[in-house]
Amino acid sequence: MRALVLGAEGFVGGHLVTHLLAEGDEVYCGVHGRSSTAFAQALKVDITDFGGILEALKQVRPEVVYHLAGISFVPEAEENFEKALAINVAGTANVVKACHQLDANIALVFASSAEVYGAISAWNLPIAEELPPQPANNYSLSKRMAELAIERYTRSGRVRCSIARPFNHIGPGQDKRFVTASFALQLARIAHGKAPPVLRVGNLEARRDFSDVRDIVRAYRLLAGTESGVYNLGSGRALSIQKILDMLMKLSKVQVSIELDPERMRGPETPEVYGSYKKAQRACGWFPVIPLERSLEDVYKYWYDRVGAGLD
Amino acid sequence: MRALVLGAEGFVGGHLVTHLLAEGDEVYCGVHGRSSTAFAQALKVDITDFGGILEALKQVRPEVVYHLAGISFVPEAEENFEKALAINVAGTANVVKACHQLDANIALVFASSAEVYGAISAWNLPIAEELPPQPANNYSLSKRMAELAIERYTRSGRVRCSIARPFNHIGPGQDKRFVTASFALQLARIAHGKAPPVLRVGNLEARRDFSDVRDIVRAYRLLAGTESGVYNLGSGRALSIQKILDMLMKLSKVQVSIELDPERMRGPETPEVYGSYKKAQRACGWFPVIPLERSLEDVYKYWYDRVGAGLD
Repeated sequence: MRALVLGAEGFVGGHLVTHLLAEGDEVYCGVHGRSSTAFAQALKVDITDFGGILEALKQVRPEVVYHLAGISFVPEAEENFEKALAINVAGTANVVKACHQLDANIALVFASSAEVYGAISAWNLPIAEELPPQPANNYSLSKRMAELAIERYTRSGRVRCSIARPFNHIGPGQDKRFVTASFALQLARIAHGKAPPVLRVGNLEARRDFSDVRDIVRAYRLLAGTESGVYNLGSGRALSIQKILDMLMKLSKVQVSIELDPERMRGPETPEVYGSYKKAQRACGWFPVIPLERSLEDVYKYWYDRVGAGLD
Repeated sequence: MRALVLGAEGFVGGHLVTHLLAEGDEVYCGVHGRSSTAFAQALKVDITDFGGILEALKQVRPEVVYHLAGISFVPEAEENFEKALAINVAGTANVVKACHQLDANIALVFASSAEVYGAISAWNLPIAEELPPQPANNYSLSKRMAELAIERYTRSGRVRCSIARPFNHIGPGQDKRFVTASFALQLARIAHGKAPPVLRVGNLEARRDFSDVRDIVRAYRLLAGTESGVYNLGSGRALSIQKILDMLMKLSKVQVSIELDPERMRGPETPEVYGSYKKAQRACGWFPVIPLERSLEDVYKYWYDRVGAGLD
């Protein structure tokens, strides 16, 4: 399959490109300019520029477009809603409109987020796709709005789009502002003797649905073959942040004291979130296979090596 | 009641201000700068500027904020989605966030649009608020997105907001790009001998739910006292554009020939749209009272006088 990956320089984009190449796909990377990709053809694409996207599509003539570009960090969108609207919403509208206009039977896969469901009551668990989204922050608002822009065009039948709603996904390469990476980096610094044995943490009680980014990108490739619609992607179970921390501490073999950091507390949070991935399983046979222990090992090793190389 | 009207210089805003003053309310007009208002205190408010809105709210200390500001013409939003996002979505988010932040028990009334329902199948008529919105153009997308931003804050309980979804509403003062005003203006020019007796029209088959803007603004005032939620506002029945045209031609007493104008054809349209206003009626006792004949008479007289005065 000839694929164009938008947002290829991001955490998930990088893992997706690796996976597509391993599967023998012909991969073109739409990059915004921050980095280059070594193993695939790269072209500069700014999703806020409609003409540029159309040009890229005409040049690459992809069978599948994976749209992973945008702001992915919740507090960043919270601080600047206008920017989140311009990139996550208008940018996504540009991508789907360009595919629609080209009318070339393109399959689009869009990385939305399970954040769109918002505050979840216990009786809504596990979250299925039928649950009406109630986005509760600017990030999830921007993702839900992007979905609405996509649905406008998929109803016309000239573009197909699978909207993925992944729950938390982790792996090597994730930005250190995300909780697992933050813990692993802090522990790696302590293990290397580069920081005092004090770990700064936010809310440890919250229970979330964690899966491996490599399972998620495998789902993205399978979703390219499904009907237009919304698909939850996750592990199907919830684990507390405390449990993640315990597992990482065990891996790091360091003794640390825990310090609550008000900066890391996101305010009142939903106690427990986990989803059902049964719809994706029915549609394309996907289910997650990488155990959490393996994910955390790889995350810790990634940060341990980076700290060792002075790249933290 | 002390009221702040955002978008007071618009077609609906003007009628709302007139109505509020007639009811004895203390009215402050948030204007963007294009015009001034004669009968109420005016202050300059740009809804894309969060700080400015907050300042205006602190100054006025309104009990009710009527938010009618934004892009209201479908083709304008279609041409520039980024602008529609910045004004209709981010602007509305600013308004509701400022009310939320002030935490002063403000009742917000937001002018959304029945356009959010999108393409309607006959079996969904009359449209009730439970029908899931499927916005099908950039204007209705921006209105639905604004509703999502509002719902984020109303769930927190610090701001109350009635989201009005009016169907087509007409009256004196409406922009001539809208169908009734366009017909009336053309007929008035012909009646004054200022144009040849040819009327340029778009799709006349479409059946729409028309009500009088003065009924709609009366609903807005009543909705300020209701619970947060979505409320359809309309006549509860559908009339063809042809019928509107026939009534206006009869009023104008001129003989004209009809010419189809491709520029005015919006492409495939939903054949019939009308809504149920029963929820609004239950919540605040509202129902429309002004007969269509009266609305069209006033619209035609408005344009006849303007053309006579050389203001067309």
